[in-house]
Amino acid sequence: MDFAIYPCYYVVMNDYLEFAKRVALQAGDIMLEHFHAEVEHREKADKTIVTVADEAINQMVIDEVEKIYPEHSVFGEEASRDKQSEFAWVCDPIDGTVPYANGVPVSVFSLALVKDGEPIIGVVYEPFMKRMYTAKKGEGAFLNDEAISVSNLGLERHATLNIEWWPEAEHDIDTALHNISLDTKVYVLHLGCVVNAACWVAWGRYEACVFAGTKGKNVDIAAVKVIVEEAGGKVTDINGNEQRYDGDINGAIITNGKIHEELVAKIKEQL
Amino acid sequence: MDFAIYPCYYVVMNDYLEFAKRVALQAGDIMLEHFHAEVEHREKADKTIVTVADEAINQMVIDEVEKIYPEHSVFGEEASRDKQSEFAWVCDPIDGTVPYANGVPVSVFSLALVKDGEPIIGVVYEPFMKRMYTAKKGEGAFLNDEAISVSNLGLERHATLNIEWWPEAEHDIDTALHNISLDTKVYVLHLGCVVNAACWVAWGRYEACVFAGTKGKNVDIAAVKVIVEEAGGKVTDINGNEQRYDGDINGAIITNGKIHEELVAKIKEQL
Repeated sequence: MDFAIYPCYYVVMNDYLEFAKRVALQAGDIMLEHFHAEVEHREKADKTIVTVADEAINQMVIDEVEKIYPEHSVFGEEASRDKQSEFAWVCDPIDGTVPYANGVPVSVFSLALVKDGEPIIGVVYEPFMKRMYTAKKGEGAFLNDEAISVSNLGLERHATLNIEWWPEAEHDIDTALHNISLDTKVYVLHLGCVVNAACWVAWGRYEACVFAGTKGKNVDIAAVKVIVEEAGGKVTDINGNEQRYDGDINGAIITNGKIHEELVAKIKEQL
Repeated sequence: MDFAIYPCYYVVMNDYLEFAKRVALQAGDIMLEHFHAEVEHREKADKTIVTVADEAINQMVIDEVEKIYPEHSVFGEEASRDKQSEFAWVCDPIDGTVPYANGVPVSVFSLALVKDGEPIIGVVYEPFMKRMYTAKKGEGAFLNDEAISVSNLGLERHATLNIEWWPEAEHDIDTALHNISLDTKVYVLHLGCVVNAACWVAWGRYEACVFAGTKGKNVDIAAVKVIVEEAGGKVTDINGNEQRYDGDINGAIITNGKIHEELVAKIKEQL
């Protein structure tokens, strides 16, 4: 190794990405290990379902970061370790706990490295089909190491939008999307795993995702922020504004870019 | 073989079921074969996406029925063969073509034997997790040969409902379910594969499915009618009435039974 050029930006970013991919594969193993069994679950304070796997993965991420990047913070959905660093690993151990707990093979692990509020590394792993989505800021987005890019469809028939909404959510995007569907004939699905659906936007399979999440829900969007944008798409808050991903967010609109302004405007009309 | 007791009801029903399971496994092979490739697709007259696999499976079902039960009708989503028989094999070659075409592993093959409008055999096969749901009228419902039964949850927080709705659908169940969700705190998902979601009702994972389909959409519900009811649930049209499954239907409400009347009443208020 040539210490004269190390650490250069490229090498360090590559190390971060390789670290994130390794952790993601470990997370995937834990997901699969618990998936076939009758998944144990119990109520969380926020009334969603959390599984044993969810907590085990979160702890594994904290432990791995502590070993390799002890100065970095970890903000996980189940547990965090705040080091007051400009670098934070933002993690959703299992996005889509309801499908996961019900034996539906669409949930994912999500991990981002956020620097000063901006995701610069994003990794999402879907262990059932073994799909690893990755992005480094400025260097494109990949699915299993092949470059991916967003679709070119407009808000029209055959476009597919995914919504993530629940009755206690702050923003009633459900009614907004219903009216947009009637108006434009787009097909609106609700998979129950916004991170996976957002990766399909990056992959060009879906045109958009709209997410109602606010408090503590940056963990859902941090990684896809960089993955979708490196694939040519756009990710903003519910009002179309940029936001930080190291704290609470104000919802998210995730699109192929082409429809972003139009969708932001239509949602604004409805909310 | 003792010809004196053959054909008795039990033996014939068993033959029907074994036939349906064999066909379902063949259908699953075709689904998997086309799934990993970039799925070719083109527009159908009804503006949904159909895949090559969809048509190949439908033709395979017609051919197999012709070989074994040449006097029976076949009503498939893509093609039919009307023999004016009291027996009709009602088939949805791939339920969930949008997820299927997009690489989402949740679509299923569905086949029912309908006698005088009533499903008496139902088989649903989900080839990604290799889940075979089966039922014979009066003899219980099974997942991979293990008995399954519906959940006991009410219309309450932690209950999960699946909706299948699109902007051209006759019944605006989307607004109805939105209001029911706000009122009762149930979580409403839209998987894009009503047959699979209905099997989760039979399995006790989801509490209900509500389906907007009318013309030609008996193929979606025929098999799950008998599977869900043999698991202890209830399946009716959108108004809570019984209906035939050898022709057009009037939507469907599919529940764990416990919430059926309440859900029918709440939907009726909203439509």
